[in-house]
Amino acid sequence: MQEDGKHLYEKVAEVVGNMVQTGTLRPGDKVPSLRALSRKLKVSVATVMQAYLLLENRDLIESRPQSGFYVKVSRDRLPAPRQKRNRSQTPRKVQFGNTVETIFALANQSDVVPLGVANPAPELLPLHALGRAVREVMARETDHAISYDFPPGVPELRRQIALRSADIGVDVDADEVLITNGATEGLMIALQSVAKAGDVIAVAAPAYFTVLQMIEKLGMLVVEVESDPDTGVDLDALSDWFERQPIAAVVVWANFANPTGALMSDDNKAALVALCNQHDTPLIEDDVMGDLAFNGGRPRNCKAFDTRDTVITVSSFSKTLAPGFRVGWTLGGHYHAAMMQQKQLNSSATSSITQLATARFLKHGHYDRHLIRLRRAYQSQVQQLRFGIAEHFPPGTRVSDPSGGFVMWVELPAQTDSQLVYEKALRSGISVTPGLLFSSTGRYNNYLRLCAGHPWSDTMQDAIKTLGRIVTRLAP
Amino acid sequence: MQEDGKHLYEKVAEVVGNMVQTGTLRPGDKVPSLRALSRKLKVSVATVMQAYLLLENRDLIESRPQSGFYVKVSRDRLPAPRQKRNRSQTPRKVQFGNTVETIFALANQSDVVPLGVANPAPELLPLHALGRAVREVMARETDHAISYDFPPGVPELRRQIALRSADIGVDVDADEVLITNGATEGLMIALQSVAKAGDVIAVAAPAYFTVLQMIEKLGMLVVEVESDPDTGVDLDALSDWFERQPIAAVVVWANFANPTGALMSDDNKAALVALCNQHDTPLIEDDVMGDLAFNGGRPRNCKAFDTRDTVITVSSFSKTLAPGFRVGWTLGGHYHAAMMQQKQLNSSATSSITQLATARFLKHGHYDRHLIRLRRAYQSQVQQLRFGIAEHFPPGTRVSDPSGGFVMWVELPAQTDSQLVYEKALRSGISVTPGLLFSSTGRYNNYLRLCAGHPWSDTMQDAIKTLGRIVTRLAP
Repeated sequence: MQEDGKHLYEKVAEVVGNMVQTGTLRPGDKVPSLRALSRKLKVSVATVMQAYLLLENRDLIESRPQSGFYVKVSRDRLPAPRQKRNRSQTPRKVQFGNTVETIFALANQSDVVPLGVANPAPELLPLHALGRAVREVMARETDHAISYDFPPGVPELRRQIALRSADIGVDVDADEVLITNGATEGLMIALQSVAKAGDVIAVAAPAYFTVLQMIEKLGMLVVEVESDPDTGVDLDALSDWFERQPIAAVVVWANFANPTGALMSDDNKAALVALCNQHDTPLIEDDVMGDLAFNGGRPRNCKAFDTRDTVITVSSFSKTLAPGFRVGWTLGGHYHAAMMQQKQLNSSATSSITQLATARFLKHGHYDRHLIRLRRAYQSQVQQLRFGIAEHFPPGTRVSDPSGGFVMWVELPAQTDSQLVYEKALRSGISVTPGLLFSSTGRYNNYLRLCAGHPWSDTMQDAIKTLGRIVTRLAP
Repeated sequence: MQEDGKHLYEKVAEVVGNMVQTGTLRPGDKVPSLRALSRKLKVSVATVMQAYLLLENRDLIESRPQSGFYVKVSRDRLPAPRQKRNRSQTPRKVQFGNTVETIFALANQSDVVPLGVANPAPELLPLHALGRAVREVMARETDHAISYDFPPGVPELRRQIALRSADIGVDVDADEVLITNGATEGLMIALQSVAKAGDVIAVAAPAYFTVLQMIEKLGMLVVEVESDPDTGVDLDALSDWFERQPIAAVVVWANFANPTGALMSDDNKAALVALCNQHDTPLIEDDVMGDLAFNGGRPRNCKAFDTRDTVITVSSFSKTLAPGFRVGWTLGGHYHAAMMQQKQLNSSATSSITQLATARFLKHGHYDRHLIRLRRAYQSQVQQLRFGIAEHFPPGTRVSDPSGGFVMWVELPAQTDSQLVYEKALRSGISVTPGLLFSSTGRYNNYLRLCAGHPWSDTMQDAIKTLGRIVTRLAP
């Protein structure tokens, strides 16, 4: 106890608190390490630790495993986006036409600041180790590398995927893994294998638009199940849909959903699987972000709660390792054989080199080491982007707070036309994804998806400032 | 003139003729070079040349450009398979179920003599140059190699393909080329883009089974248009089908068809395109074997006769360069935009490394040099296989005589059950493709497809002998 009635650690906490208040430390920044601050203030490491725990208790900073303490982005300043009720009570046709293509043809131009595309930046990826893996494959497995590798795909790769699945309680062996051209092909063949034209697919919404487009192309109908930007799909809403009409399949993003970043709890995952079982309906989950949890271990997926072999897990290495490799996979359970046949017809084999190189990379244990770095990078990028939004977007803006992955869902002030935001942003050299694309109903027109797959930079900082100006001008 | 009334060159011709009659030289063998024989017989090179021309006139040997003279496989001994009339007068459902998968799951085992799979042997492919191209890509275009390369695909690759197309009179530029995961994906998206469930597709038959399976999966109906094993699709038959009902698309193999090896003449190609135009029907051609002509230049494809932009050409480098690269392409004409959208939904991007490596290989001019060697190898393998059939199969066997590619169509004596042949052959470690797969009607049950993608060897020689024994035993 000091003379002014305060503990030493409280004084240390004050010093750091002031740095935050004066803007010396900004939300998302790393606070000084224990050792550095102990040396600077001439107090013990234990005292600094106590101070940081106090600040964490007060919700000013947060600890990230193996990384340290960071200034927290206040949730008051950035409330979560709201669910938007689906007023439609009947299955709908999706009618995008070529809207999505038009948007992405422009947004994919290379000179654009890429807030609209869910891409990892190449500099975050293990270029060196992947390059070595490819060279080794060409040197030591030349025949295999250039020959057809027919489905289900390279055995060692399937074995590695089965091993990783076992880590989160999914009981599959290599024979139940099917390699696909990325998760896109996995999702397509999953839909093709469990449903036909005219069937109704229940999709968590806001929904990754590619699945809506697939439903459109396959002549299926969609019902959109509201999802909370924090906790994921609303099970009561899904249950209501089940009561209303037969559902051929349910599609969800249980881990760090695209576009919200929502993470379903294990209890909810189990309940979702049970609900689907109760209605004899296959559940398709897109788990591409599952390896990207910021804190804590890798969350389980729905497959881990699958008791009847009717959950189809679709995933890939496109968000974690190398999108251009086109290596994805499915755990198709009961539908594995049908999906393999469909895969054969859709594209025959998957690229052999990239399968073999990915297998080597996994086998050598590089993947987990890489993930530690990558998750830290995504977490910091997500925080920076959220802070930028807090700083530059108009009052009334709300942003999701993903605990993994690198996409977030932004609710703009009511009546702000995100399509106009998209157009004006593009003219300023910035890509965003307008909310329109995440539903068949058009109800997310005042929402945006923003992606934080690229390292923070001055360009990014300027872009978010410009974007804030555009939104402010367009907000009513 | 010599004392026995014969010209010297006639005597030389007799010497070589005897070598053939006694079996010293066998059909498909290369005859001694002009220089070698001239030295051996102590006559001039010109005399040997005259002798060879005489033998060529007598149909005993044949010249192959840049390669020399070869003992001809007598057509008398191996008559062409017959067309088998399609008795069905109405569109049919295809109902393979998983027959094809079952057959190939077994036939793809690595320890089987691969007469059943249309695969090039790795030793025929330019491993060294491809390896170098891949290493260069990883070293110099690292970011591109691991990043998404969204459709239409790598610009330089599309440029090279457009250039090669121009060589055979196809007027397209790089913007009209769409890169796909092999020709399989190209065929799938072509069908998906021009027709829907319930539509009728006219397919040249015997038909590459994958297209029949696609029609089955897509819920379309098929009408099978008879094709001559030599000259390809019967235009009168197609015209009759057009009169009977609306046809949503026509699918053909104009160059070295799978399974017959048939080559359509330019006149027939032009007439086919005109017939489709007359009925406002898109024509889909699978041109994967087009680069594999044994003699003469690369034949034109149907696209070269396309006046209305309604021919869709599908092709790949899988039969010529590296099946495992999964690099195919389409020239979609009028349907290009729709096909690009479909491609995006089916698998998003195509593997970047293999696209970039193929572009380098083409740009450096390696492809044409490689093709010269490859065509010679395929030609010799096809001749050896045909000779083996002539020697070991029972009377009544007929075999097509492809002038390019490496697949051939074998008609077994009537009532021979090729399904049984398949099963017994597999038990002896030999894969073949039963005729059943090449039609929805089952009418090719006494036919086989055999593939000569692998260099001739003692194993191959023994296999064809064994196969001959099996067929002989099963022939009624």
